Amino acid sequence: MVNALLATSDKSFHGTRVLITGGLGFIGANLALNLSAQGAHVTLLDNLLPGAGGNEHNIHSFGDRVNAIQGDLRDPQVLEQCLPDQQYIFNLAGHTSHQDSMRMPDLDLEMNVRAQLSLLEACRQHSPGARIVFAGTRQIYGKPRYLPVDETHPVAPVDINGIHKFAGEMYHHLYRQVHGFETTVLRLTNTYGPRMRVKDDRQTFLGTWIKRLLNGEPLKIFGDGEQLRDFNYVDDVVEALLLCALSPDAVGKTYNLGSREVVSLSTLAELLTDLHGSGTYERVAFPAPRKRIDIGDYHGDFSRIETDLGWSPSTDLATGLARTLNFFDENRGYYWP
Amino acid sequence: MVNALLATSDKSFHGTRVLITGGLGFIGANLALNLSAQGAHVTLLDNLLPGAGGNEHNIHSFGDRVNAIQGDLRDPQVLEQCLPDQQYIFNLAGHTSHQDSMRMPDLDLEMNVRAQLSLLEACRQHSPGARIVFAGTRQIYGKPRYLPVDETHPVAPVDINGIHKFAGEMYHHLYRQVHGFETTVLRLTNTYGPRMRVKDDRQTFLGTWIKRLLNGEPLKIFGDGEQLRDFNYVDDVVEALLLCALSPDAVGKTYNLGSREVVSLSTLAELLTDLHGSGTYERVAFPAPRKRIDIGDYHGDFSRIETDLGWSPSTDLATGLARTLNFFDENRGYYWP
Repeated sequence: MVNALLATSDKSFHGTRVLITGGLGFIGANLALNLSAQGAHVTLLDNLLPGAGGNEHNIHSFGDRVNAIQGDLRDPQVLEQCLPDQQYIFNLAGHTSHQDSMRMPDLDLEMNVRAQLSLLEACRQHSPGARIVFAGTRQIYGKPRYLPVDETHPVAPVDINGIHKFAGEMYHHLYRQVHGFETTVLRLTNTYGPRMRVKDDRQTFLGTWIKRLLNGEPLKIFGDGEQLRDFNYVDDVVEALLLCALSPDAVGKTYNLGSREVVSLSTLAELLTDLHGSGTYERVAFPAPRKRIDIGDYHGDFSRIETDLGWSPSTDLATGLARTLNFFDENRGYYWP
Repeated sequence: MVNALLATSDKSFHGTRVLITGGLGFIGANLALNLSAQGAHVTLLDNLLPGAGGNEHNIHSFGDRVNAIQGDLRDPQVLEQCLPDQQYIFNLAGHTSHQDSMRMPDLDLEMNVRAQLSLLEACRQHSPGARIVFAGTRQIYGKPRYLPVDETHPVAPVDINGIHKFAGEMYHHLYRQVHGFETTVLRLTNTYGPRMRVKDDRQTFLGTWIKRLLNGEPLKIFGDGEQLRDFNYVDDVVEALLLCALSPDAVGKTYNLGSREVVSLSTLAELLTDLHGSGTYERVAFPAPRKRIDIGDYHGDFSRIETDLGWSPSTDLATGLARTLNFFDENRGYYWP
């Protein structure tokens, strides 16, 4: 296992009680690994729905260091079991697939809207004092009107998922204003690393690239390959989540993540094949349903979180991708057939 | 009946097929009266849920000039019955109560989010070419950061209703971008006039003021009475809806309504009691649940719709309020016990 943990000499979470929703997913499991190494009492809640990111292998090495519960945020009994006495809630549960949200908007509504409302309503009763960090997404901005995109950029989602994720954000801010919750919203960009979903592109296209590379298949770039993107290695995202939960300054705030390394898809494909020592990529025409919701170039301005919390990404793309390839090379049987 | 219709020498909708969702509600019924006078074939769809604005008396004088159907937007069979061949859809259905949305967020989610998604999905199948005008609300802006509030003001709702109504807006824009629908969003401010809900404050506090005045009870002003608001008489709102539906320039647009007459609540109370020839008002402390979601001063900048479509309100507050008082004086038995 090559997933480099953050330096955990910081034991800020030692002995604390932490709930991670979507805890068997990609980011949830990496966060859980960090927190349990710090000595936190970690509960993972995940409904393990097939289209979402939960994967039992993500926590197979954790033993009894975490308490994993299979259950749904829309189930009041599950919440009654999980919420009481939690000091921190990292609220990562949700569906991430843009394509799925267009094909099955009702399912996305259930998972990203109703589930969030159910959780927050239950928190009023069971854990009103918990510090809550919600994982939002840069998808809410839609096609950028300027670059880099800061947090004041207009919200204009180009898919159902973006609409629903923004509703989730607004709920978190509202429950702070009206009910006194201590909430923070973190808008993630493309996150990658060990335990990501690679069997399809429901989390990011980069997952399928990694799978194809390891399968000896050519990477497929939609369009001309000049689209710009930014990427965060999962450990950097975990650090941002922890900083948000710890800092009083973060309460009520919305933060972008992002990276100073902004790359085109072609450059990313070259970097990946170079790191792997082999592999090819090809440009293919955009499938129509995908083109309709494509956002063009995107990179985020993360100066707000850098100023407020001192966060900036510390793992460069080459290092992060090499670790990711290594992880999936060693664990391939668990992540795709 | 003193509800002055707009001049309907314009017969733009003569012979057209029009669906009004929430059609037995306040604005829907006034719109239907105008359209049927123009010779449109009007279908009204309303679920007549007790907390919403539908009232069968609103259309009692219409005879068989409209086709009224009791049904819910979440019911595919109802939509299959109502949608085919419609050329215009005025999508006014929804819950408007801020207080209800905080007490029963799930119900507001059903009525303002799931119902909208259900309607738009059904339109893909049954009426993809219909011109759709959606009734949004200024509530999505939350506490104004500047005045007057224009359409680029940040979206920061202070209640569940505002969050859900914004999701409804975003759906309408998304279905235009992705599925080619011809949609327009109109953000209403306080609308008043004949057929408004007056038995409680679920549509606007002004409704209860009218009822209290006619009952000989003092009007209650929450706070110091200095809060500023703008108001539109319902015929002006009907005209805006019709202009949006007719103008190709309005497709894809979001428009505020508003008024040049910006008044404080105290001034409004004085105007009402003067018009009525009697009546008193008193200032009372804000009830806590109401204070938490109060937006302070609000008035909207409606220059965008004025420039694009030539709309501006033509009924001044004194004239509109006098007509409204007259209507409810004549119809009081039908609007409150």
